[in-house]
Amino acid sequence: MSKSPEEEHPRTAFGWAARDKSGHLSPFHFSRRETGEKDVRFKVLYCGICHSDLHAIKNEWGSTIYPVVPGHEIVGVVTEVGSKVLKFKIGDKVGIGCLVGACHSCDNCANDLENYCTKVIFTYGGAKYHDGTVTYGGYSDTMVAEEHYIVRIPDNIPLDACAPLLCAGITVYSPLRTYFDKPGFNVGVVGLGGLGHAAVKFAKAMGIKVTVISTSPNKKKEAIDHLGTDSFLVSTDQEKMQAAMGTLDGIIDTVSAVHPLLPLIFLLKSHGKLIMVGAPDKPLELPVFPLLLGRKIVAGSCIGGMKETQEMIDFAAEHNITADIEVIPADYVNTAMERLAKADVKYRFVIDVGNTLKSSN
Amino acid sequence: MSKSPEEEHPRTAFGWAARDKSGHLSPFHFSRRETGEKDVRFKVLYCGICHSDLHAIKNEWGSTIYPVVPGHEIVGVVTEVGSKVLKFKIGDKVGIGCLVGACHSCDNCANDLENYCTKVIFTYGGAKYHDGTVTYGGYSDTMVAEEHYIVRIPDNIPLDACAPLLCAGITVYSPLRTYFDKPGFNVGVVGLGGLGHAAVKFAKAMGIKVTVISTSPNKKKEAIDHLGTDSFLVSTDQEKMQAAMGTLDGIIDTVSAVHPLLPLIFLLKSHGKLIMVGAPDKPLELPVFPLLLGRKIVAGSCIGGMKETQEMIDFAAEHNITADIEVIPADYVNTAMERLAKADVKYRFVIDVGNTLKSSN
Repeated sequence: MSKSPEEEHPRTAFGWAARDKSGHLSPFHFSRRETGEKDVRFKVLYCGICHSDLHAIKNEWGSTIYPVVPGHEIVGVVTEVGSKVLKFKIGDKVGIGCLVGACHSCDNCANDLENYCTKVIFTYGGAKYHDGTVTYGGYSDTMVAEEHYIVRIPDNIPLDACAPLLCAGITVYSPLRTYFDKPGFNVGVVGLGGLGHAAVKFAKAMGIKVTVISTSPNKKKEAIDHLGTDSFLVSTDQEKMQAAMGTLDGIIDTVSAVHPLLPLIFLLKSHGKLIMVGAPDKPLELPVFPLLLGRKIVAGSCIGGMKETQEMIDFAAEHNITADIEVIPADYVNTAMERLAKADVKYRFVIDVGNTLKSSN
Repeated sequence: MSKSPEEEHPRTAFGWAARDKSGHLSPFHFSRRETGEKDVRFKVLYCGICHSDLHAIKNEWGSTIYPVVPGHEIVGVVTEVGSKVLKFKIGDKVGIGCLVGACHSCDNCANDLENYCTKVIFTYGGAKYHDGTVTYGGYSDTMVAEEHYIVRIPDNIPLDACAPLLCAGITVYSPLRTYFDKPGFNVGVVGLGGLGHAAVKFAKAMGIKVTVISTSPNKKKEAIDHLGTDSFLVSTDQEKMQAAMGTLDGIIDTVSAVHPLLPLIFLLKSHGKLIMVGAPDKPLELPVFPLLLGRKIVAGSCIGGMKETQEMIDFAAEHNITADIEVIPADYVNTAMERLAKADVKYRFVIDVGNTLKSSN
């Protein structure tokens, strides 16, 4: 028989977990493994709230194992390192994103694309670690992971505002680098939320000309004045959408609700690429004819590998890119989830785990 | 006021046209322009019947101008050349595919991708030529086009069986070359009709390992014994489809009916590409999550540019690739269309225009 979450490992841990698909989060005592030879253990200071967390706690993707401790935008300070750890020492500022394991023998792993390894182990949400135990995320006091999955946080970047980069940041950085990293390229960013605002910042730093495409006209001022977007299209403004047809080399589509692709495909030049990074839970309508006529591409992209994640954080530090965040105490998480469901946040909640996560025992 | 089709140009022409969306074809007297300085005029000997012809005569894509003379798989022998024609002389064997004009000033034209020029002029079906007159296709006695749009047919390739290559051939050759031209690549071909059987032949000649994916189990023997397909999957055989998950580097999807993409996306390895060359008239369902998780791509591809079309015909001649055809007389076209609608042809009808198209006047 399997042991309880509190007993299965030797080290005690504490966090907030959802117990069922209501998604309600509450204090949760569990345990974590001993610090292995290649492991880095750290005290969690901040953890971002990703839209995936909301899907996971309500089991909207069908793969959640309860109780679930969400959180995969995790930063903190190293407290222990295993005897074979080479790159980290106690006191280092580090982070963990969406991944804590992979097979390390497939082509994807060999090419630093652990995120596409079919045996990838996600930081939480239904994943089981090599030892068969469920993984728990960063709404918790400590994390432990193999050195390979630990990201070094440069000193000049604030810990709280860089936490969301570990998911939201790499999710948009990877396709920008892969497909659109040409100064002068015209790239659209659909949706101005956690992912979208990070996409604008990274794209601008790469020298890309950015058009934000949004359903909300009231985001225009912020997009242009604050984020430095070059232009702004309201997706329901048919006249301006029509005028912009065939002007974009590519689009990063961050929207995770069901939405029409046809207007976006029309915005692309021939050979343009529409990269989906949001994950609607229902299929979208794909009009094939417009794809054919311009040899256009619709592709998916999912976070990034560890090497690219480190590169992303270093790039962010070099270009002073952080997420715009609202820092909240741990006991605000349920309210934060309700607000997130209504997109009522600019642009990312970050839990101040270090100062506010208190065990009642 | 515009002149009648019979009067608008100085040279008489005769063919078969549909007059309304019933799609019924009947004899049609019209006219073609004089042979211009850069023009090549030829007597049509054979014209393939493409599935697009069926869509066009019934105006299923909404852009047909009636009367419409279909046909864009046209071969024949040169009868006149303009004073500035450099590459062709009387008696040469030539062909015309889907294109007879483009802007020649955009990036696509500069990159030999006239097929993606937004001002491309199609051989028939709603297109208007530079002079404002409607273009007419190859179910007719003569063709005239700028030298740039004329393809040289090598001597060792039979004229009738090479006609379909000018649309069906280039439609599959271009994405194979662009995306999958690596010996040892595993590529799926969905649908074994006019496009699909050409895709198998070209792919095999490129050293690609081919899997045909079809709804019809009874095509297996033919696919393997006659076409040399390496393996055959019945798309409704869930067990075998499951076993083949993640095995294909790419897929050429030739199906123009609405069909599910999810099973095809599952067949792809990570970073695999699903290239659509059929044009369903309704949107398909695109599941986004599976695209994300494997960084997979769905793309469209539409015929090819003139340079690539010539390269395709030369490659076909070198590798003895022709279409499998059923040659029919001109007055059989309406029956052929009915059979085509039921996919009752192996694999392409070709009209013997030279011997059977007779003007009743």
